[in-house]
Amino acid sequence: MCGTDRILVNKSSNNESIPNNEAYINLDHGDPTMYESYWKEVGQKYSVTIPVFQSLSYFANIKILCWFLEPKLEEEIKRLHNIVGNAIVEDRHIVVGTGSSQLILAAFYALSDPLNELDPVNVVSAAPYYSSYPEMADFLRSRLFKWSGDARCFDKDGPYIEMVTSPNNPDGVIREPVVNRATGMLVHDLAYYWPQYTAITSPADHDIMLFTVSKCTGHAGSRIGWAIVRDEKVARKMVKFMEINTIGVSKEAQLRAANILEIISLSCQKHKPHDLENFFKYSHRLMVQRWKKLRDAAKNNELFYVPKFPHRYCKFSRDYTETYPAFAWIKCKEGIDCEKLLRRHKILTRSGRRFGSDPEYARISMLNREEEFEVFVQRLSNIHGTVNGN
Amino acid sequence: MCGTDRILVNKSSNNESIPNNEAYINLDHGDPTMYESYWKEVGQKYSVTIPVFQSLSYFANIKILCWFLEPKLEEEIKRLHNIVGNAIVEDRHIVVGTGSSQLILAAFYALSDPLNELDPVNVVSAAPYYSSYPEMADFLRSRLFKWSGDARCFDKDGPYIEMVTSPNNPDGVIREPVVNRATGMLVHDLAYYWPQYTAITSPADHDIMLFTVSKCTGHAGSRIGWAIVRDEKVARKMVKFMEINTIGVSKEAQLRAANILEIISLSCQKHKPHDLENFFKYSHRLMVQRWKKLRDAAKNNELFYVPKFPHRYCKFSRDYTETYPAFAWIKCKEGIDCEKLLRRHKILTRSGRRFGSDPEYARISMLNREEEFEVFVQRLSNIHGTVNGN
Repeated sequence: MCGTDRILVNKSSNNESIPNNEAYINLDHGDPTMYESYWKEVGQKYSVTIPVFQSLSYFANIKILCWFLEPKLEEEIKRLHNIVGNAIVEDRHIVVGTGSSQLILAAFYALSDPLNELDPVNVVSAAPYYSSYPEMADFLRSRLFKWSGDARCFDKDGPYIEMVTSPNNPDGVIREPVVNRATGMLVHDLAYYWPQYTAITSPADHDIMLFTVSKCTGHAGSRIGWAIVRDEKVARKMVKFMEINTIGVSKEAQLRAANILEIISLSCQKHKPHDLENFFKYSHRLMVQRWKKLRDAAKNNELFYVPKFPHRYCKFSRDYTETYPAFAWIKCKEGIDCEKLLRRHKILTRSGRRFGSDPEYARISMLNREEEFEVFVQRLSNIHGTVNGN
Repeated sequence: MCGTDRILVNKSSNNESIPNNEAYINLDHGDPTMYESYWKEVGQKYSVTIPVFQSLSYFANIKILCWFLEPKLEEEIKRLHNIVGNAIVEDRHIVVGTGSSQLILAAFYALSDPLNELDPVNVVSAAPYYSSYPEMADFLRSRLFKWSGDARCFDKDGPYIEMVTSPNNPDGVIREPVVNRATGMLVHDLAYYWPQYTAITSPADHDIMLFTVSKCTGHAGSRIGWAIVRDEKVARKMVKFMEINTIGVSKEAQLRAANILEIISLSCQKHKPHDLENFFKYSHRLMVQRWKKLRDAAKNNELFYVPKFPHRYCKFSRDYTETYPAFAWIKCKEGIDCEKLLRRHKILTRSGRRFGSDPEYARISMLNREEEFEVFVQRLSNIHGTVNGN
């Protein structure tokens, strides 16, 4: 995740000093520090306190399938989905994970292992796809599953797993499966299906749906994700993966995540505390402002193409809205390597190549702290003319 | 970890009701709830409070190799090892993990991937070995590494990874590597090398050493382990594993673990707070008492053999001590299946078979809550005569 970039990263990535002219702005990762401003306004009174004698045991609830899931977290996950209306949770199994990354691996394992295939099950996703999928599928060189690239080019026989990311990372597009064969198994990565990013058009209802607090609330450091799973056998096998991999998930992180989801649900109530702003309204407003600034910065030059999104009716906000993705998927004029061009202007992004796409594209995080975002749009607006980005 | 046992587990595994005559006592897992009594005495004043706006970022310290490691946790890990004298930490890399389970997998990956071997690297450990090693090595059917059984029978060529668990799980024996070839790579699992369990004879100084709060402080629910790694490349590769697997480790769990290790270090000081008992003295005393009760319960029948351990000088306590392992590795008379026999007496344990050993053996957790332990020794003392355990 870091690699050699670290030497270039300005200390503002980890504290609040304002980036200076010399410092690189790191918009490579989707580090959601934008949300700090909301949580600072919420303030100390919603802190979570964990006594030293609490949660010593491996077990959280031995009566349920996912025995390491804190009951309070399960309750708050279900409550929030019901309030937002973005996923069906009734009669589904909740499996908690150390971030949704671990749950993606758990899903690969749970779907492939019982098949007893001679060859690894193919894992595909339509390009541009989340840049970590290939590495996640292949890093242990498993004989259970392997990365097989762009779902649109997939022409092999046999069972396959298709990752359906919607809204999509990197490009924010609302997606459906593209292979559509009887032998397919679907994993819906819905990390960004929240009202600050896109219209909630209906509650998602798929076999395996993945969510994470990182992109919902901004608490990436907690490493809490959850899967909503229809089939009990699949859920049980995902739990098995979690047992072997990490013997469950940190109780402290679960307890704080439960607390944070509870605050968000509270903030959505009609009769909420007067000093608690609706979380999704607040963060939607921020996203609208940022996308406007990005479009303004790019509109006066012919180098960058910023994608447009359709208006859809959001049942949560009861209003029409565009999609305001967590990442901007920017295209440069043909022949220009977008990531390299931006790097020369001290903006670190992720090249389109990493997403199975072309180097004309780059993915730019829209979720950094305000002062970093401001420097980014300032620098972007200063890039003019015809440039050789290679 | 749970499986079908769950239906048999008395609710006392998760709260404090006293087990009744009908309930099974679950001593299968090493759930370290024994330590609750110490932490309840420590009480509320050492609770950790985490504000809602803290630790949103994925990053903890971008200046170090293990960028997701909280600086405070690193500091407290090093301080405690220096106080206890059980491991060299100077000029070593600390890699934090979601429990030591994740670090075992990270070590397999870090040691095998760079070799680019055609065949998977063999993973071995001398029997009786920790029952999870085979499954951890094999569950994803990796082409990088595979389980190859008892290290004492290992006769293959090529590179291999030997797990050296000392004191050993399940039998508490102090161990050295047994294969001893130039192509070997060692991982020392030192989860139980703490003064409550065994004499600290010298600071361990190996290439990769694994520790976990679960068995040191009793906070298994936190899922915090750490590796002390000599070689930078290996440490970097382990960090890479953590990135792909879970994008780091929960910050809340790290912050609480740091807090807990700090309390333990404080409790070991000469000028400690008067109401804070030395943690290791307290827990060593508990272990001595429990092992005495176990031996008393077993001494009047000829069915069970309870192992004995040599006295060694402990540099931490400045006194001679036996080993008082976290598990009792009990042997029944020949022909008796120990796990089945105990199960008939409503004591759930783990069969010797699971550790690459014989069914005459069973592993019994010594770390359950006091009331469960008391019922266990009571039941054990009531088992008499010649029994067919099969």
